[in-house]
Amino acid sequence: MVNVGMAFFPDVDERDGPAADYFAQCLDFVELGDHLGFHHVRIVEHYFRRYGGYSPNPIVFLAAAAQRSRQLRLVTGAVLPAFNHPLKLAGEIGMLDAISGGRAEIGFARAFLPHEFQRFGVDMNESRARFVEGTQVVRDLLAEEEVTHEGRFHSFPATTSLPRPTQRPHPPFWIAALSTEESFRRAGQLGYGIMAQPVVPESLRNNLEVYRRAWKEAGHPGSGRVMLAFHMLCMPDGEEARSLGREPINRYLRLLAEGASEWTTGARSADYVGYEKMIEKLRQDNFDRLYERGSALVGSPDEITNMLLEYHAACGGFEVASVQFYFSNIAPELARSSLELFAAQVMPRLKNL
Amino acid sequence: MVNVGMAFFPDVDERDGPAADYFAQCLDFVELGDHLGFHHVRIVEHYFRRYGGYSPNPIVFLAAAAQRSRQLRLVTGAVLPAFNHPLKLAGEIGMLDAISGGRAEIGFARAFLPHEFQRFGVDMNESRARFVEGTQVVRDLLAEEEVTHEGRFHSFPATTSLPRPTQRPHPPFWIAALSTEESFRRAGQLGYGIMAQPVVPESLRNNLEVYRRAWKEAGHPGSGRVMLAFHMLCMPDGEEARSLGREPINRYLRLLAEGASEWTTGARSADYVGYEKMIEKLRQDNFDRLYERGSALVGSPDEITNMLLEYHAACGGFEVASVQFYFSNIAPELARSSLELFAAQVMPRLKNL
Ligand SMILES: [Ca+2]
Ligand SMILES: [Ca+2]
Ligand SMILES: [Ca+2]
Ligand SMILES: [Ca+2]
Ligand SMILES: [Ca+2]
Ligand SMILES: [Ca+2]
Repeated sequence: MVNVGMAFFPDVDERDGPAADYFAQCLDFVELGDHLGFHHVRIVEHYFRRYGGYSPNPIVFLAAAAQRSRQLRLVTGAVLPAFNHPLKLAGEIGMLDAISGGRAEIGFARAFLPHEFQRFGVDMNESRARFVEGTQVVRDLLAEEEVTHEGRFHSFPATTSLPRPTQRPHPPFWIAALSTEESFRRAGQLGYGIMAQPVVPESLRNNLEVYRRAWKEAGHPGSGRVMLAFHMLCMPDGEEARSLGREPINRYLRLLAEGASEWTTGARSADYVGYEKMIEKLRQDNFDRLYERGSALVGSPDEITNMLLEYHAACGGFEVASVQFYFSNIAPELARSSLELFAAQVMPRLKNL
Repeated sequence: MVNVGMAFFPDVDERDGPAADYFAQCLDFVELGDHLGFHHVRIVEHYFRRYGGYSPNPIVFLAAAAQRSRQLRLVTGAVLPAFNHPLKLAGEIGMLDAISGGRAEIGFARAFLPHEFQRFGVDMNESRARFVEGTQVVRDLLAEEEVTHEGRFHSFPATTSLPRPTQRPHPPFWIAALSTEESFRRAGQLGYGIMAQPVVPESLRNNLEVYRRAWKEAGHPGSGRVMLAFHMLCMPDGEEARSLGREPINRYLRLLAEGASEWTTGARSADYVGYEKMIEKLRQDNFDRLYERGSALVGSPDEITNMLLEYHAACGGFEVASVQFYFSNIAPELARSSLELFAAQVMPRLKNL
């Protein structure tokens, strides 16, 4: 069975309307999604630009979302240890877990936008080391009391993070991984879930195999948890959905390229081998390519169901999907009817997966 | 007219019950307080110990509280620039202001607990400088776009914090001040409110005069805003209130002394002249002394009204009060009936102040 949640990725700013309206709308969708039986709500951490910049702290939004829902899992997708002190982050996770009655799930990512590193004054060449140390320390602070830490980036004497988490030993962790086999292997060894992007499924397939093999070899029960995020627009008439979804998704891709623009103007880092080429490729991405590889679920309920089944088979299977249904400048009414139609006609058919 | 809000200061930990229960109760009180016409809800930032440690990020709690209230102002009491990156803090404030539809109010404090500085690896001798720089940078990031900053503790190239605040130029600011005349003067010059402690009113009076004079001399409209936080327990029978309130308030004072214990075992800082003596004095504080100086509003509605009127006259007046009504181990049912009785029989009589 595939569980489906809602993902928010605010690729908007004031030119699209006041932030208060954006969040009021998202929180209404949270309430709706909870009623419709979605599995989770998920939101990013990004800064300073239209690409995600409305959500510099996902935990703040999720604390609000906790009060508008009863069942939804509250997922950071993802927090960035590079820009957060682990003592602060562990405390915030404890608060969110308490405020939601134990519904927090914490995705961690390395961050990849040069302008964010530059403004926080963090060296991109330390990205991987900060990610590894930060994730480990936050885990220790959540799972253990009296944690002493002497690391490369942070050190502190025996410290008990408060509040102690509601879920023990700690809320489920997820690791965001893009294409590096080693990232998938490491997440499996640690027993954490994988948050991946639905790239060409055949190329994801190998990495997911690596992940599940590492998971099993480390002796964790089950075979791991994989979460994929898809753009989604569901309408009775599939052609109409593609006609209305094309421009907003192309805009999302333009804003991603804009957010990552420093990669194409000279940013380089040993911690991000090949990123300049990957971002250059992203700039040539568009709705048709996303649609073709199955990462833009835009169509009728039947079409979307088939795309999901096809992708699931091609990549070797995943446990959780997130649908990004309220993106760019698509009208809230359209996003709402799309979410409702998806819940009514697609979700029930994923039960047998 | 004095506006009264609710203050939460979690002087509890797991020995008193799960954090999830504590926050569920607080959020129920937020809903109740909103219905009863309270002015605001306020919560602290503290870490690692029973004295406040359940709230390492007040903005996380306030984002949840925003979804349980329609009118309440959402007040940080206070955030600590010493332990927060200004880029992060400005972004979180923008999110809270948006999520609440423009109800955020931001109190800033210097922090004063040696163990917090020690664990964050921040030198207490930099406390004042960090506070001044941090508060100023957060103001700039909220009020202006493309802010460039080269400071002692933080530097960044031209940066626009997102989301832009809902209240322009920025949510109201408050400065927490204890006893240093210069802190009161500076807050008045900057046009910010003052969050003060209800110490002996005659000694507060001079500092409030300094504050209001500086406010006027700087040309700000009106005469400033002063907020005081009181412990409060209101019951039909005043003697019964004092009998039930005594131990929980004494416990609160013990936990404060415990939180600040390093001051009595050698901590010293040029940025905290005389703190070791002040904390030593705090250790001898108790319910009777608080009650005598009017900072523990414990009694019948008539008694509490008179205490507030008396304190108001003695200190020269204040605009906003916060009542800390759910403290230590007092029973939720007692806190609830106390809040309701206060709203019904005390609040209306503060309208003429
Ligand atoms: Ca609504
Ligand atoms: Ca350890
Ligand atoms: Ca296909
Ligand atoms: Ca309730
Ligand atoms: Ca400036
Ligand atoms: Ca008196």
